[in-house]
Amino acid sequence: MTYRILALSIATLLIGNAYAAPLKPEDQIKIRKAGYSFMAWNMGKIKANIDGNFNKDEAAKAAAAIAAISNSGMGALYGAGTDKDIGDTKTRVKAEFFQEQDKVRELAGAFNKEANELAKVAAGGELAALRAQFGKTGETCKACHDKFRKEDH
Amino acid sequence: MTYRILALSIATLLIGNAYAAPLKPEDQIKIRKAGYSFMAWNMGKIKANIDGNFNKDEAAKAAAAIAAISNSGMGALYGAGTDKDIGDTKTRVKAEFFQEQDKVRELAGAFNKEANELAKVAAGGELAALRAQFGKTGETCKACHDKFRKEDH
Repeated sequence: MTYRILALSIATLLIGNAYAAPLKPEDQIKIRKAGYSFMAWNMGKIKANIDGNFNKDEAAKAAAAIAAISNSGMGALYGAGTDKDIGDTKTRVKAEFFQEQDKVRELAGAFNKEANELAKVAAGGELAALRAQFGKTGETCKACHDKFRKEDH
Repeated sequence: MTYRILALSIATLLIGNAYAAPLKPEDQIKIRKAGYSFMAWNMGKIKANIDGNFNKDEAAKAAAAIAAISNSGMGALYGAGTDKDIGDTKTRVKAEFFQEQDKVRELAGAFNKEANELAKVAAGGELAALRAQFGKTGETCKACHDKFRKEDH
């Protein structure tokens, strides 16, 4: 067994088939929620940096994570059957999300643009610029939540 | 109200205080699991690219997400009280994780190094190199799982 094959076997064991495409609808919901939760954590860290002791490196790494997650093609996690709760796997997505794809693309595109700008600005390390871009990014999050996310349930 | 204050108010509304530091132990567990799930999804995408139709752009974006998540300081999500299940919030971390911090640093550092190399290699777009680096990265995931993660429960 060559090293390459061994390495791939280990990797296959690691991820199993759990997340190999195509994903089950409930896994798509879980993973998209994971992505949003992880981005929210990093937004929270940036906010704490803006409001408190500014740590350029932490803010830059947080923004880089948000941008990279935003770039990773989460649209693939809204496949058929992911429009409602599946057992214990809850989703707050509204039916309109699946009916207004042009609007989804517009709002997702706006977020992606601002998230990448946020990463760029955060890497620059200038607090006032980061504060402004954090606000702009947050507005694009909120625009999509307002349009396509149900209230807590 | 200036634009800046308005923007920050919106951002604050958006993330609420849910993920503002310091996080509750159950939120730390949820967010670290979210990070690992999101990385696993992206590892799965890279594997599908290696095994099937190679899409350089998708593989590069997946690897960038893994690296950025790895760089984002997830060690902060293993605070006091996160060593065991909290209600419905389950964790598979072993007690040893909190007792062998040098080993944790070693394994986490190895993963972080390989994840960043994975992002670099994936950005290069060369399939054979990506396959090799994917294997190396997977080994560092597995090393930590073997040492510090309980079997499914």
